[in-house]
Amino acid sequence: MTTDTVSEAPKRRRAGGRRGHADRAGGAVIEQMPFKQPVNPDPFVEPLNEDGVQAIHKGVVRILKEIGIGFLNPEACEILKQAGCKVEGHTVFMDEDFLMQMIGRAPSQWTVTPRNPDKKIVIGGRHMAFGNVSSPPNSWDLKRGKRSGDMATYVDFIKLTQYFNCIHFAGGYPVEPIDVHARERHLDCLFHKLTLTDKVPHAYSLGRERVEDVMEMCRIAGGLTREEFDAKPHMYTNINSVSPLKHDFPMLEGAMIHARRNQGVVVTPFTLAGAMAPVTMSGAVALSLAEGLAAIALLQYINPGCPVAIGTFTSNVDMKSGAPAFGTPEYMRATQMTGQMGRFYGLPIRSSGVCAANVPDGQAMWETSNSLWAAVQSGSNMVYHAAGWLEGGLIASPEKFVMDCEVIQHIQRYFDPALTSTTPDDIAVEAIAEVGPDGHFFGCQHTQERYQTAFYQPFASDWRNYEAWDLAGGVWTAERAHKISRDIIDGFEAPPMDIAIRSELVDFVARRKAEGGVPTDF
Amino acid sequence: MTTDTVSEAPKRRRAGGRRGHADRAGGAVIEQMPFKQPVNPDPFVEPLNEDGVQAIHKGVVRILKEIGIGFLNPEACEILKQAGCKVEGHTVFMDEDFLMQMIGRAPSQWTVTPRNPDKKIVIGGRHMAFGNVSSPPNSWDLKRGKRSGDMATYVDFIKLTQYFNCIHFAGGYPVEPIDVHARERHLDCLFHKLTLTDKVPHAYSLGRERVEDVMEMCRIAGGLTREEFDAKPHMYTNINSVSPLKHDFPMLEGAMIHARRNQGVVVTPFTLAGAMAPVTMSGAVALSLAEGLAAIALLQYINPGCPVAIGTFTSNVDMKSGAPAFGTPEYMRATQMTGQMGRFYGLPIRSSGVCAANVPDGQAMWETSNSLWAAVQSGSNMVYHAAGWLEGGLIASPEKFVMDCEVIQHIQRYFDPALTSTTPDDIAVEAIAEVGPDGHFFGCQHTQERYQTAFYQPFASDWRNYEAWDLAGGVWTAERAHKISRDIIDGFEAPPMDIAIRSELVDFVARRKAEGGVPTDF
Repeated sequence: MTTDTVSEAPKRRRAGGRRGHADRAGGAVIEQMPFKQPVNPDPFVEPLNEDGVQAIHKGVVRILKEIGIGFLNPEACEILKQAGCKVEGHTVFMDEDFLMQMIGRAPSQWTVTPRNPDKKIVIGGRHMAFGNVSSPPNSWDLKRGKRSGDMATYVDFIKLTQYFNCIHFAGGYPVEPIDVHARERHLDCLFHKLTLTDKVPHAYSLGRERVEDVMEMCRIAGGLTREEFDAKPHMYTNINSVSPLKHDFPMLEGAMIHARRNQGVVVTPFTLAGAMAPVTMSGAVALSLAEGLAAIALLQYINPGCPVAIGTFTSNVDMKSGAPAFGTPEYMRATQMTGQMGRFYGLPIRSSGVCAANVPDGQAMWETSNSLWAAVQSGSNMVYHAAGWLEGGLIASPEKFVMDCEVIQHIQRYFDPALTSTTPDDIAVEAIAEVGPDGHFFGCQHTQERYQTAFYQPFASDWRNYEAWDLAGGVWTAERAHKISRDIIDGFEAPPMDIAIRSELVDFVARRKAEGGVPTDF
Repeated sequence: MTTDTVSEAPKRRRAGGRRGHADRAGGAVIEQMPFKQPVNPDPFVEPLNEDGVQAIHKGVVRILKEIGIGFLNPEACEILKQAGCKVEGHTVFMDEDFLMQMIGRAPSQWTVTPRNPDKKIVIGGRHMAFGNVSSPPNSWDLKRGKRSGDMATYVDFIKLTQYFNCIHFAGGYPVEPIDVHARERHLDCLFHKLTLTDKVPHAYSLGRERVEDVMEMCRIAGGLTREEFDAKPHMYTNINSVSPLKHDFPMLEGAMIHARRNQGVVVTPFTLAGAMAPVTMSGAVALSLAEGLAAIALLQYINPGCPVAIGTFTSNVDMKSGAPAFGTPEYMRATQMTGQMGRFYGLPIRSSGVCAANVPDGQAMWETSNSLWAAVQSGSNMVYHAAGWLEGGLIASPEKFVMDCEVIQHIQRYFDPALTSTTPDDIAVEAIAEVGPDGHFFGCQHTQERYQTAFYQPFASDWRNYEAWDLAGGVWTAERAHKISRDIIDGFEAPPMDIAIRSELVDFVARRKAEGGVPTDF
């Protein structure tokens, strides 16, 4: 090494925790990691032994064969009857052979490509994708408290969804904008989602008209022909069963449309142990799997190989009050068991970032940390509600959104193989010898070459000592997160969109509104 | 099943998350789990492959052989010289054969028995033990803010340490009581610790006199003869190296006294990557292991088979400010790597529950959750500072203590095999059939038989919906934890102690104070 080399400025390697390039919309409110799907290198936590896996599978098979699942959709019943299932009323009975044959058709991994192909995501394998909080009726923030959802607040959350690189897909509505009539709400919501984000979009399966409107808008936004759109996944839906033991009409209708057009379908039963499911966690998981697999079997019969995933929303209730609990030890184990079973069935897995807390405080973060790390441990591929969720899903909070993104970045950085690399340069015996017993590593060449990327750099944490923190106002995390969220929203710049495509979207929305939107009975 | 059976009151099984019996001191401020050491059933997260393990081991060997470790204690140098090590000044060089031979003498598991034998703990294997925050100079609480440590506050934290069943050992001073002169501080501190708790006590290795005073007090508290005391571990010390590459005089002196008398010694280098250790995590881990193993080799030469553990305090600094960071992704991986290496060397492992936050808010809980779950993943046997730590160890907080105990109980409950049990009763197909598609599980017999113990019951979380929570005052977690901490402290009842033993302790303290305590130069 020459003196010249030593006197050079430190090399700027960009592989580490800090932002590599300006891959984001909006200004530099925070320094964040680039958009990149994390790949989980750790062994999954699999709490079941082989007997346990078989016991749950046998439970699933018995539920499907002996008890049956209600498909509250005549078309679905008719299809499954044709497929050879026993159907009584709307109850469908499936045997193990049919189930396993259909499930065997599902791909274990698939890709969704949104209007910006750089934001495509892989669903399956060791890939993870994180999405925004979806579907709360209300929002809460530090300044305004709890309020019903409206379109302005919806737009704010869509901006946060786009801004944070660690959020990989734009899930359902972050808040339900009840100030827009239900007949045209989906048109405005999707217009904002498709123009303000370029990430994978989601459609609610709330009847044929809405699903087809959203598909058409996603097709336009991608600049695709109908054939190009239908050729591969560009969006997805998530359907929930009506636990116990039922799938409702509009969810099945939407799922079948998605399946026929090769768009993603995630099937997520909502089995709260002790309420809609057995009080025992493996029982709740078995019921959840039976409900989910039944719908997936239907979709694979309709379109073999269509992209699907099995979701879990199994948690427990507070047996004192009946209130749902999230991020509990029981929740973690149920998520891990479902992940293990998902791999047994060869299906991608979806879980969530959830908590029962009402405000973005300590409880919110220990419960959400539990659920996000359980997503990691379970090998979840999609993590829904990963940022912004409060009050068991009844509140979306911008502060919580920011705080959760910090934890998601932790996870992304945690996966970086640089952290556990053991080359001779990493072990650094020469640097240890050079510094010796009386030196400090900060000044040594080994450090200077690496210090800019060596460590994760948080954006919401405050690492100053108490006195410096206090002198700067003694601001607690939720308040720091509030300021960050406002700065991001206020400085937001939308991702680029071809003006002709934007016009086509505007025209589509105007035409559909002129046609009266979707018929409602109110 | 007869009608009579159905009409019976639900059976009260007590195996689950709720408190099984009144195994605690003090009143029923909260319902908590009984005192029981958790046993970790999960596979450990081991980020190194075999080459990685060998690379770190080779680094350790090279550091010990080529660079050497400073033993700033002439007796230790003399002993290691006799043992055949090369010694230059106070720098000791060890070769691999000597190292591995000495380390091979250490037990992979040992037991510490405090004055109440029911509170004995196993250090090693899959057992975990959690201890209170130790050594902050300051305390902080919601009402009084940040204050220098004093004896009244020390006593408050000792009461919390005893009260919480999930805290298994009474580590160092939860705050440093600077209102008591250093010459007699250890006498008062240990008197309170030994009378107000019956859990495993700790001695600071701050010179021979203090260590021997504490040992004598632990012997008296246990009602033991000198021979009985020396026969097996009844207490432990933790020593830190002066990184890089040194052990100081009093720490080594205290450790050698403990080793000779078969009391536990945990050796925990404090290697902050980028400051006292290489900026690369595997380099920081290698340096930490080299320092720690060197001291353990000394102790095993002195008393083969004496109880020891290898600790990790490897984290990173904020490269912008030099401030230490805790609970980071880098911290988690360093902890896991150290755990893996600890098993390679056949030694029990100690890590910590740590954060850099200044107040018990969201950041505090995501950082602490990261570090506590990293303790689980790493297979740590002792988790120091597990409850109450803030500001990188400069603050002890009663609110944080309560909040951390909630997370520790999560961990304890998470380990319960009941959560992943898959007997036919757990899968519950009959209950699912009985409830059917239109029923609810709350009322069914399967639930009624299990609901009291089925789920973890938190004490610091509030699971009410927003409106009920708001109506009750809208109390955030830190404030709820404040109230719990005050109620526990105000209602505290000390564990029973034989009056003669207590008198002997009183007399010992009085005599040692009359003798002037420990000489100091101030």
